[in-house]
Amino acid sequence: MAEKYVYFFGDGKAEGKKEMKNELGGKGANLAEMTNIGMPVPPGFTISTNVCDLYYKNNRQYPKGLKEEVDENLKRVEKSTGMTFGDPDNPLLFSVRSGAAASMPGMMDTILNLGINEKVVEGIIKKSNNPRFAWDSYRRFIQMFSNVAMNCQHEDFEHVLDEAKKKKGVVNDTDLNADDLKAIVTEYKMVYKKQKGADFPDDPREQLWHAINAVFGSWMNDRAIAYRKIHDIKGLLGTAVNVQSMVFGNMGDSSATGVCFTRNPSTGDNHFYGEFLVNAQGEDVVAGIRTPQKMSLWESQNWANDNGISEDERKKKYPSLEEKMPDCYKQLCAVREKLEKYYKDMQDMEFTIQEGKLYMLQTRNGKRTGAAAVKIAVDMVEEGLIDKKTAVLRVEPMQLDQLLHPMFIPGQKRTVLAKGLNASPGASVGKAVFTAEEAEKMGEDGEKVILVRIETSPEDIKGMNAATGILTARGGATSHAAVVARQMGKPCVAGCGQIIIDYKKKEFKSPNGNIIKQGDWFSIDGTTGEVIKEKLETQDPQLAGDFGKFMKWIDEFIKMKVRANADKPKEAKLARELGAVGIGLCRTEHMFFEEDRILSMRKMIVAENESDRRKALAELQPIQKGDFVGIFKEMADCPVIIRLLDPPLHEFLPHEEKEQKELAKSLGVDVTVIQQKIHELHEFNPMLGLRGVRLTIVYPEIAEMQINAIVDAAIEVKKQGINVIPEIMIPLAGKKYELQLMIDLAKKIIDDKLKAANIDLHILLGTMIEVPRAALTADEIAQIADFFSFGTNDLTQMTCGFSRDDAGKFLKVYVDKNIYEKDPFQVLDQEGVGKLVDMAIKLGRTTNKNLEIGICGEHGGEPNTVKFCAKVGMNYVSCSPFRVPIAKLASAQFELEK
Amino acid sequence: MAEKYVYFFGDGKAEGKKEMKNELGGKGANLAEMTNIGMPVPPGFTISTNVCDLYYKNNRQYPKGLKEEVDENLKRVEKSTGMTFGDPDNPLLFSVRSGAAASMPGMMDTILNLGINEKVVEGIIKKSNNPRFAWDSYRRFIQMFSNVAMNCQHEDFEHVLDEAKKKKGVVNDTDLNADDLKAIVTEYKMVYKKQKGADFPDDPREQLWHAINAVFGSWMNDRAIAYRKIHDIKGLLGTAVNVQSMVFGNMGDSSATGVCFTRNPSTGDNHFYGEFLVNAQGEDVVAGIRTPQKMSLWESQNWANDNGISEDERKKKYPSLEEKMPDCYKQLCAVREKLEKYYKDMQDMEFTIQEGKLYMLQTRNGKRTGAAAVKIAVDMVEEGLIDKKTAVLRVEPMQLDQLLHPMFIPGQKRTVLAKGLNASPGASVGKAVFTAEEAEKMGEDGEKVILVRIETSPEDIKGMNAATGILTARGGATSHAAVVARQMGKPCVAGCGQIIIDYKKKEFKSPNGNIIKQGDWFSIDGTTGEVIKEKLETQDPQLAGDFGKFMKWIDEFIKMKVRANADKPKEAKLARELGAVGIGLCRTEHMFFEEDRILSMRKMIVAENESDRRKALAELQPIQKGDFVGIFKEMADCPVIIRLLDPPLHEFLPHEEKEQKELAKSLGVDVTVIQQKIHELHEFNPMLGLRGVRLTIVYPEIAEMQINAIVDAAIEVKKQGINVIPEIMIPLAGKKYELQLMIDLAKKIIDDKLKAANIDLHILLGTMIEVPRAALTADEIAQIADFFSFGTNDLTQMTCGFSRDDAGKFLKVYVDKNIYEKDPFQVLDQEGVGKLVDMAIKLGRTTNKNLEIGICGEHGGEPNTVKFCAKVGMNYVSCSPFRVPIAKLASAQFELEK
Repeated sequence: MAEKYVYFFGDGKAEGKKEMKNELGGKGANLAEMTNIGMPVPPGFTISTNVCDLYYKNNRQYPKGLKEEVDENLKRVEKSTGMTFGDPDNPLLFSVRSGAAASMPGMMDTILNLGINEKVVEGIIKKSNNPRFAWDSYRRFIQMFSNVAMNCQHEDFEHVLDEAKKKKGVVNDTDLNADDLKAIVTEYKMVYKKQKGADFPDDPREQLWHAINAVFGSWMNDRAIAYRKIHDIKGLLGTAVNVQSMVFGNMGDSSATGVCFTRNPSTGDNHFYGEFLVNAQGEDVVAGIRTPQKMSLWESQNWANDNGISEDERKKKYPSLEEKMPDCYKQLCAVREKLEKYYKDMQDMEFTIQEGKLYMLQTRNGKRTGAAAVKIAVDMVEEGLIDKKTAVLRVEPMQLDQLLHPMFIPGQKRTVLAKGLNASPGASVGKAVFTAEEAEKMGEDGEKVILVRIETSPEDIKGMNAATGILTARGGATSHAAVVARQMGKPCVAGCGQIIIDYKKKEFKSPNGNIIKQGDWFSIDGTTGEVIKEKLETQDPQLAGDFGKFMKWIDEFIKMKVRANADKPKEAKLARELGAVGIGLCRTEHMFFEEDRILSMRKMIVAENESDRRKALAELQPIQKGDFVGIFKEMADCPVIIRLLDPPLHEFLPHEEKEQKELAKSLGVDVTVIQQKIHELHEFNPMLGLRGVRLTIVYPEIAEMQINAIVDAAIEVKKQGINVIPEIMIPLAGKKYELQLMIDLAKKIIDDKLKAANIDLHILLGTMIEVPRAALTADEIAQIADFFSFGTNDLTQMTCGFSRDDAGKFLKVYVDKNIYEKDPFQVLDQEGVGKLVDMAIKLGRTTNKNLEIGICGEHGGEPNTVKFCAKVGMNYVSCSPFRVPIAKLASAQFELEK
Repeated sequence: MAEKYVYFFGDGKAEGKKEMKNELGGKGANLAEMTNIGMPVPPGFTISTNVCDLYYKNNRQYPKGLKEEVDENLKRVEKSTGMTFGDPDNPLLFSVRSGAAASMPGMMDTILNLGINEKVVEGIIKKSNNPRFAWDSYRRFIQMFSNVAMNCQHEDFEHVLDEAKKKKGVVNDTDLNADDLKAIVTEYKMVYKKQKGADFPDDPREQLWHAINAVFGSWMNDRAIAYRKIHDIKGLLGTAVNVQSMVFGNMGDSSATGVCFTRNPSTGDNHFYGEFLVNAQGEDVVAGIRTPQKMSLWESQNWANDNGISEDERKKKYPSLEEKMPDCYKQLCAVREKLEKYYKDMQDMEFTIQEGKLYMLQTRNGKRTGAAAVKIAVDMVEEGLIDKKTAVLRVEPMQLDQLLHPMFIPGQKRTVLAKGLNASPGASVGKAVFTAEEAEKMGEDGEKVILVRIETSPEDIKGMNAATGILTARGGATSHAAVVARQMGKPCVAGCGQIIIDYKKKEFKSPNGNIIKQGDWFSIDGTTGEVIKEKLETQDPQLAGDFGKFMKWIDEFIKMKVRANADKPKEAKLARELGAVGIGLCRTEHMFFEEDRILSMRKMIVAENESDRRKALAELQPIQKGDFVGIFKEMADCPVIIRLLDPPLHEFLPHEEKEQKELAKSLGVDVTVIQQKIHELHEFNPMLGLRGVRLTIVYPEIAEMQINAIVDAAIEVKKQGINVIPEIMIPLAGKKYELQLMIDLAKKIIDDKLKAANIDLHILLGTMIEVPRAALTADEIAQIADFFSFGTNDLTQMTCGFSRDDAGKFLKVYVDKNIYEKDPFQVLDQEGVGKLVDMAIKLGRTTNKNLEIGICGEHGGEPNTVKFCAKVGMNYVSCSPFRVPIAKLASAQFELEK
């Protein structure tokens, strides 16, 4: 039996079905399916992906018999529509589209109105009584076909159109009449001939085969090849070609076209939702020149109400489809119900009504907001449409982010001044301030402020805490501002290089010259990275209700746990509320910036000898202990990993001379002593300098103080009957013996203290894996470590050799040139850094079966990375509190996708 | 048969032999061997290492029968010497020493004079007629025994001695007489009793067993354990104990003691060489209080001549052994000849003459200078004593360094002002200058100058080139100054933190207050790191003669090749002369600092757009081409790897405002434009910033210019009939596709140019492996790379997370605490970085069998690393020209040691 190349759909029966995506592509399979379940789909046929494969295997020759099959199917479409391809009296026109099994930008776009020529135009005019529509259809076809199928220069056609409008003194295409368009058609053909050296093809069949060639040709164009390479799309045969009879929504007042959703894609509400225009084509709905009308009377009245339109005016100018074409509306309602039950998901549909008859042109799963995704998933489970597993798989993890932060109430006027990095999500409104001190002062006075800085440093912590949002001109997604803002759950737009900040004038300027001065209200959207001129209204996140239900279902499937990065009791509490089952990273350095301790910290740093250092540390110890007591109490029954001091000491010293003088005064030394110390501590590459475990190897007394404080705190809380599970983490170790020195030190303190207090407590001692050397020798290190926590920020910096503070300069180019698909500081570079992580886990478990393994870098809350972590066998991921639900969803999805 | 624990030596026959190192330790085996070949060795016995093993296996109990064996051997020694252990009338005294199969500091030192007590002292006085000698022997024994064998506090004994001298008003021990010493003995015993709670042991046998216990105990002390751990010494049973009868060189005028070498250890000359003192003990020879006398008349006369001593005075005060004790001298000459023929190596011997009778106490292979090592090896081959393989194995690779650089003529008075890192070897003498400009100016005037800087930057290149040596206060062995100095072959002392440089006053100060001002003569020794006050005399290296012969032999055994890092024709020439077979790294960046091009380079950097950048590059291209033509000509028939631009662009911009203004003026822009550009280019961690391939990904036109220049140069040289083998190297790549973009660019240029010129030339295109990610994905990268060159400087920085510019602050502590045995920037960290190198080579060869692999980091000239590179299968190492002979020797030795 000869192979089948072409699949017909029409008259309520299709040769394909939705399971045949591989053969027919996504679009073809869906058109077939809709036809089969009785939807009014304009008839047509799909040339299978197999033909594409054979075409390339056979040196761009089509298989024998294809032409005959196409001809045969053309006839079936003619029969079904009662029209004839190329017949001026009753012309059948086609749309031609590509469509592979995977969605793939870069392949050929749609060609509409195929089959038209001078004679056919006349026939259409006769039939439609609408010469403008006919000539405009022809004009559009020539332009589309020449460009898309024949590779003509787009600009030359645009030029003709522009000249015609200029000559007539009009601005819009719609202002051109039939004669104008007819003249343009003539000129277009001349352009074509000049470019291609041949007449524009008049023969509909010739047009059709050019279009089919173009679709198959587009499968191997550079963009499509690159797209498949980058997205690792393999194993596809090729693209299919969909040839479908045209229907027209612009054939008069009984015609219309629209787009609708089975549920509201913004809120998830179970109402029919959509827009249409009478006497219009699909592109007019999105062009925004006419105001689209609503589907249902209810929606239409709501809309009029919101926009201050009287019921009379609404009825007259913007009647709903329910009122305007009640029969079609009823049909559409039936389609809505049927498709949703059939596809078991919210559908996004396109329809056209031609002279009172409804046609369905497309259905697909609809895109939706995070709130809608959760609501629809929960509703559908409760309606019995889907099960919980399906519901959990229906929500994109990153979509949850929208639910966890304040949002701008939709529909407000917003002037975008500039766009930066969406560094920490959420909407923030406040008065502009330009120093941390002012932020703090105004914050204390109860004012809402946004802190605007070129970049932030650890000294700004208090000001950042007082602000409702943070805007910086420099720094990437893992800059200080971004990291701290995420930790605090505050919206942040970072690295917004478009604005020019003037500290002296206390103002910033946007690229178009808008100036925001100290005290001016403005808004930032940390979810989109936008800086907005207006003082917008916001709404708070809703963590109970559907979201709460959804998160409980997640817990049923999750295996790899999710902890949070939290430094303070308040953050620890929030983390638990958001579902964290432990703390994966409690940084101790942020603690040292608070008023009651920064002076002692600085004393310690400028100390000239161990004895003075120990004196300063003795002042810090009780304060540190207090911090840990607070956290341990919040995290009863949950593990808490506390990391010993990590950053270089110079970060704690003041940068401004004024503050240096204050410090000198309070220490009773000359300011030059402080400046000399700052000079001594200067490093060329602080990232690779004296920090992490290196600090406590050089100054073991710092580690001693911190370990003492941790153990004392644990004993105190335990004595109150609270179950405390502390783990001590040593950062930046690269060698077993380096870690050994610290572990020996810790063990001695722990053993002595627990013995003296007569308390039984097992404190795990582990290390971060963030230096490549540690990963490479993980088998050695695991012999003495109870746990590994991958610090993938630093591990990425060192493995790729990218300074996260500087890489902004070239990483954008790298992503643009497809060297990296995503910024490796946001999405873990699985192929490189991930290989090292995988290797380290395998090596580590060879020598320590019980090794507890997690990740605490910024990647720990990124869904793809979370799934990777589960795949390589981590025990947990840890991320900032607001990312915990996202990570949990990703972790659950990994189990369900396995 | 019962196991044998104790091995006797004496009376011309020993139970052991030199092959029994494992059982008897190095010392014991050598004493046995010397006895066997008829040397006059004082009799004694060795308790085997096996006893040590059993002692620890059996909870510190000795095996049954040991006591009896020791007693039996004591009797044999008594019989042989005719003296009796513990007999006051004819006392036999012993020395007790430890000695394992491997030399191991940290174990027990020698105890001399064992067997002495109040009664024995009296016997010695009677026999020797020298009460001071007898009491001093007793005093020394108590102090040594208490401290070494019984773990008493050393300080308390020193205190007694100091008090006695103070009381008597003298400074030296030698000023104390017999009565003083007798009184001290009494006090010593009180100290002992106070500390140990028991009387000092009088019984010689008790003393002996305490000493044996102490030796075995020292095998497991912390220092010895740590030493074995660090040096990876495994598989030894334990230490042996050598108990040997004492002989005394201080029994009057017919007694003497000395140290001698079979050849001159400084020059290698085949003359008997050594020193002795009449009526003295071993320690007196090294104490420096008396002037030692020479062995031979010839040597003695030379010495007197050099020191302005008349023949009369010499004969009277410093007669040679040849004159003073002609019989013993003749005996020693026979020993010299016999031992050297027997051991086939230059021997270092200790002897004692007791009342006219010669005793040999030790022989071992003698330490020697590099010059001596080469001369002795070459001479011995020519004398037929050893073969060439042995000769090649006899010289420590690093010893060659001494031969390759100017040296200070020995014997000059030198005041060491300070000590820094021995960053680039050789001796340098010059006037101090403190800026590169002054160095250049004075250099042009023909003055010899040493450039003294806190640290150097690429702007200082010309000044460094004009100087004879470089001294910096900051920076490690791979700092800019060090790397450039080695490259230039100029002596450099770097990171000399002890000196304080004052640029304003144009002077530097040493810790003891010496000040060297601008224009003052001084000297630096780059081989030792010393800064010397005097203007010393130097001598040039001798590369012909023995050295030349030796290097030829090396070529017979070498497999892994040695190339050189060279940037200029002059360096390339030197590299060939020193034996390099190619250039492994030609950096193009140093070229850009020269006067005729730095302005164009800076224009390129400050250009605002690609077109301006291309204009500036067009100026550079012919100059670059000229550079390459020069190098290709020098390196006819040899491969030359040229690396594309690597350092961050800001390195090329001027740091001083004056220069910035000049630049602004010559570019016709405002100085703020320059300053703004410098500000924009600033990076927090330049090491991990916009450099290497990242530069040419962002600005491909830079790579285009360089590749054009390389190919044009190759074509020009090839057309002259010279065989040119260029290879183009892309630095810092981390990902296959990143490299692909550059390789595609290069291939296009190469193909076009070669086609146009009708020239057949294969230009290899490869990459440096210096980012851990590249090593991890080496299989991917090798698919498109023709060669890998490991840049182990950067690879170490990123793998260990150490900034080489900053690590000085903590790496010293790390080495002190034994976390790293050696600075990983000097000796490759084989366990960590080396693991990655090994992995990358294996991965790379899985996808590209023909991959050419080398190393071009600073480690490429370090012998241990060179052997490692050979082990993991590299094709070549590349190092600075002066290290080429060292690397060649290490490479040859690797083959011979296999």
